[in-house]
Amino acid sequence: MVNSDNPTDGIDSESVPEVVVQRLPLYVRVLSHFASAGIEVISSEQLGAHLQMTPAQIRKDLSYFGRFGKQGRGYDVGNLATRLRSILGLDSQWNAGLIGMGRLGRAVAAYPGFQPEGFRIVAAFDADDRLVGHEVGPLRVQALAELNETVEERDIKIGIVTVPAAHAQEVINQLVRAGVRSILNYAPIAPVVPPDVRVQGVDPVLALQSMTFYLKN
Amino acid sequence: MVNSDNPTDGIDSESVPEVVVQRLPLYVRVLSHFASAGIEVISSEQLGAHLQMTPAQIRKDLSYFGRFGKQGRGYDVGNLATRLRSILGLDSQWNAGLIGMGRLGRAVAAYPGFQPEGFRIVAAFDADDRLVGHEVGPLRVQALAELNETVEERDIKIGIVTVPAAHAQEVINQLVRAGVRSILNYAPIAPVVPPDVRVQGVDPVLALQSMTFYLKN
Repeated sequence: MVNSDNPTDGIDSESVPEVVVQRLPLYVRVLSHFASAGIEVISSEQLGAHLQMTPAQIRKDLSYFGRFGKQGRGYDVGNLATRLRSILGLDSQWNAGLIGMGRLGRAVAAYPGFQPEGFRIVAAFDADDRLVGHEVGPLRVQALAELNETVEERDIKIGIVTVPAAHAQEVINQLVRAGVRSILNYAPIAPVVPPDVRVQGVDPVLALQSMTFYLKN
Repeated sequence: MVNSDNPTDGIDSESVPEVVVQRLPLYVRVLSHFASAGIEVISSEQLGAHLQMTPAQIRKDLSYFGRFGKQGRGYDVGNLATRLRSILGLDSQWNAGLIGMGRLGRAVAAYPGFQPEGFRIVAAFDADDRLVGHEVGPLRVQALAELNETVEERDIKIGIVTVPAAHAQEVINQLVRAGVRSILNYAPIAPVVPPDVRVQGVDPVLALQSMTFYLKN
């Protein structure tokens, strides 16, 4: 019962398959929908129907993090959502630095979806001297030379990369040297990083390109 | 040798794991980088180093589509890129319809990355009568009631959904009824669709939320 009471204690992040970790935020979303609809208990069948997974897969995913739910009674929606949020670190605030303040960078800076979820862009950088010093919303664009110092001062844990593809690997190297271990990459490249650095790509064109396979075949 | 000469003939899309299909656009990107650097032949080791995969996994992925490369000699960069582009349907133009013309929809309409890759947004829709008729770049916002007719007239194969989460499932249902089988979903939900419909989510917050697991644990 220790696992059940303290599901975040003793999780060995290496033992959890990355695909499972990537699904957890979706579980949280779906559970939040159920909670706001006033539903208190949910079965793995119901969860599976909303996530297009089998009930067995749902139970297996959750088993990595402890024992949730009671045999034959389903999951307590509020409790499971709270625990998964805690496991994912979503009950904390995370500071991010944005690198590349061209059109895409400014759109990302203005994106209203980060802040309510606990992600705060606290610094903005660009390699172009002509942009340095400009105000973008509440941010003042800084020179890349200030990256290391600012990462430390502002406790930046996440780098958001919105530079052109040709400069992305170089900027990602700089973030890694500055100690950043989580990178959200909007540039259309597959960057090379050390094994302890996580990169997530945000790329609508890549998403479209894998769908045309099914349109064509 | 038939497979090798006509790698797009006879591919049963159901027999290829979805993760493999999702990696193919990355192969194309990496091969294009090598080609523009003047490199003509590449080994599975080199490809693997750029994609953070083992050479064996590279060879296995490509084996679904025919026989590429010669034992011990590596892959012909230009030839492999051309074949993968053809397999993915990237040598065609694909028309897309954009639904939801708020702040996010307008940013997507202005995104410069679609057109060079063969994706063209040819129609824009919104449920809000006050937006209908407005011009957004080269597009005139249409009422959702015109969706079915426009999908057929403009040969729209892809729906891009930029409506708020609360309306996304409903809009996706409408796209499916209109015959659209590929959906790029920017709304933060996991939609339910028939098995022959492909949905790809573009959601920077979900990407961030799975990275904080590793920051925390």
